[in-house]
Amino acid sequence: MPADTEPGQSPLSGVLAAIRPADPAVLADARAHQDRLTKPRGSLGALEDVAVRLAGAAGVTPPPMPEPAALAIFAADHGVHAQGVSPWPQEVTVQMVANFLAGGAVANAFAAQAGATVTVVDVGVAADLPDDPRLVRRKVAYGTADLSQGPAMTVDQAVQALETGIAVARDLVARGARCLITGDMGIANTTASAALISAFTGRDPADVTGRGTGITDETHALKVRTVRQALHANAVPVAGARLPGEGMEAVEPVEAVEALRVLAAVGGFEHAAIAGFILGGAALRVPVILDGVIAGAAALAAAALDPAATDHCVAGHRSAEPGHSAALDHLGLRPLVDLELRLGEGTGGLLAHPLVCAAVRVMHDVATFDAAGVTEKPV
Amino acid sequence: MPADTEPGQSPLSGVLAAIRPADPAVLADARAHQDRLTKPRGSLGALEDVAVRLAGAAGVTPPPMPEPAALAIFAADHGVHAQGVSPWPQEVTVQMVANFLAGGAVANAFAAQAGATVTVVDVGVAADLPDDPRLVRRKVAYGTADLSQGPAMTVDQAVQALETGIAVARDLVARGARCLITGDMGIANTTASAALISAFTGRDPADVTGRGTGITDETHALKVRTVRQALHANAVPVAGARLPGEGMEAVEPVEAVEALRVLAAVGGFEHAAIAGFILGGAALRVPVILDGVIAGAAALAAAALDPAATDHCVAGHRSAEPGHSAALDHLGLRPLVDLELRLGEGTGGLLAHPLVCAAVRVMHDVATFDAAGVTEKPV
Repeated sequence: MPADTEPGQSPLSGVLAAIRPADPAVLADARAHQDRLTKPRGSLGALEDVAVRLAGAAGVTPPPMPEPAALAIFAADHGVHAQGVSPWPQEVTVQMVANFLAGGAVANAFAAQAGATVTVVDVGVAADLPDDPRLVRRKVAYGTADLSQGPAMTVDQAVQALETGIAVARDLVARGARCLITGDMGIANTTASAALISAFTGRDPADVTGRGTGITDETHALKVRTVRQALHANAVPVAGARLPGEGMEAVEPVEAVEALRVLAAVGGFEHAAIAGFILGGAALRVPVILDGVIAGAAALAAAALDPAATDHCVAGHRSAEPGHSAALDHLGLRPLVDLELRLGEGTGGLLAHPLVCAAVRVMHDVATFDAAGVTEKPV
Repeated sequence: MPADTEPGQSPLSGVLAAIRPADPAVLADARAHQDRLTKPRGSLGALEDVAVRLAGAAGVTPPPMPEPAALAIFAADHGVHAQGVSPWPQEVTVQMVANFLAGGAVANAFAAQAGATVTVVDVGVAADLPDDPRLVRRKVAYGTADLSQGPAMTVDQAVQALETGIAVARDLVARGARCLITGDMGIANTTASAALISAFTGRDPADVTGRGTGITDETHALKVRTVRQALHANAVPVAGARLPGEGMEAVEPVEAVEALRVLAAVGGFEHAAIAGFILGGAALRVPVILDGVIAGAAALAAAALDPAATDHCVAGHRSAEPGHSAALDHLGLRPLVDLELRLGEGTGGLLAHPLVCAAVRVMHDVATFDAAGVTEKPV
């Protein structure tokens, strides 16, 4: 148990108690500072907003430089794979874990470019993984149950995965990371993502279910039916995520318990772990760059557990998955990179990292009109 | 005169003779290589295209890593400023040159983030600049003439500025740069950009004239009228840029002579220098990342001089200026960053640099399905 958790308080409760929303006074101060820098007002577009948001989240202007970055790839399998929602065999999850550890995946190449570390976490892969000191072994189970037939996880399993994400975030920050990047690996995890996004945004499954890493029209129709069936089987009303509590011991606010039930019912272990990773970063006031649709789904769960968590998130990119745009709209986040990536692994988050650093560096390095002796345009 | 220029050949002629288009066989090979890497086909979206294009341009798969990068900021003034097209006083060009040299501008912050060098070139600032060993002094004149009243430059001046850009590109590559990034500084230079874009794409001035660094509706209307007047005063037909030759000594192909006349008539010294910088990079097969609307206008001139030059260019970003999108469409380039920047200086090109590096690094580092033992999805 982390040292900063009160006696009797779970890591999840402790983190939820620690998260602070963006500071409005710091947001205003950061915006005013932007306007004094030697550039036309607003001329850095969306990057000005990123820097201002991170100042508000950190509670200081300028916010700390968000480097070095640490990518955590949470790997898990999905019982719903048995429904035929993906053309890839489930073994590819294990094979890609080995590829990450060997440094051969796109995430490794992008991490090398960004100067980011890569941590691979087995949070629920459906196979025994070979001994490897670089692998963080936190398997909750050998894959989730089939979410189209009932709950994918028990609530206890979801909490275990959430707390794994919290612990990984804490560990990476303790080792010096000043920016966290979400990553995922799990064949069929876009199906669980669509179910979570449908549940948390109230959007119809047909609007938020995409083609993942590439499927036929027929498989896509099956995937939409499967998501719809999952919501039905788990009594998740599509118009909004807030469900009545179930009489659990209410260490969390009621809304959080409802969010936990939805996350457990139709999520994956990696979604829960990424939600915890986001909450863990937010509690430490370290920015979290979200990757694609899996991270977007997890961020919806994190926001349902604590809306202030979103203040600490940056949307790294917009993936080609339609559900991702729905999630970002719901979260009020604007993605930085929009290049039709649909790979996952953290690749979109890694690409955004230098843009986030550039945005923050402006607030550290750029001269003001006064200091540089540059004439300001009459407003 | 550079060592690789034939006797009697001008640097511009030599460069135009040296530029090669992308190699179709290498393009096909690079595409096939992308499809063998451990990722779903096409899952890196636009970044796969960037890597494939750079392989074709370099003539080898994988293409060389495009780092380190070198930014060149070409600074110049514009006679058309007298028409009141910008709210900023012309002295801001000089003041910002000093800011670049002191390291206090946004371009400096972004360059530091990208690990890029910054070179500032006076190609036509309307003032004497203080002695500074870091400033490259290549002033063609103290600003251009007013393009709304007649030619902004003589053709000889335009060639001098073009050859300055060529020389700067060669020098930076000789010092180790493996990627060139275009930058500019010049109050009123979005007006000349709009005129060039209108001339080279045939689009109406009203469609390609924007608000630069921030102007009122009234000033915008004046700016559109000024661009229209410039095209009229210089007999530039808006429907297409190809004008009849004027009986100059035809060391260049006729089309190039026509392009030169348009560039001289309605461009700026920095546009001509950036066009030369692009041609110089292309001749050396070093990729050139284009910044915003000024670079887009210059790239149209470079493409009119030699269409193969565009094969060596990457569009760094899409600026908020409407003319920039028109230029990119005409060039067939897709921008990598699209965040409503409207600053110039090379800032959009610098932001794109890590994305270009990431795209190329994939081809160097990522394992193939065979090598990694990852099962490939049945196609």
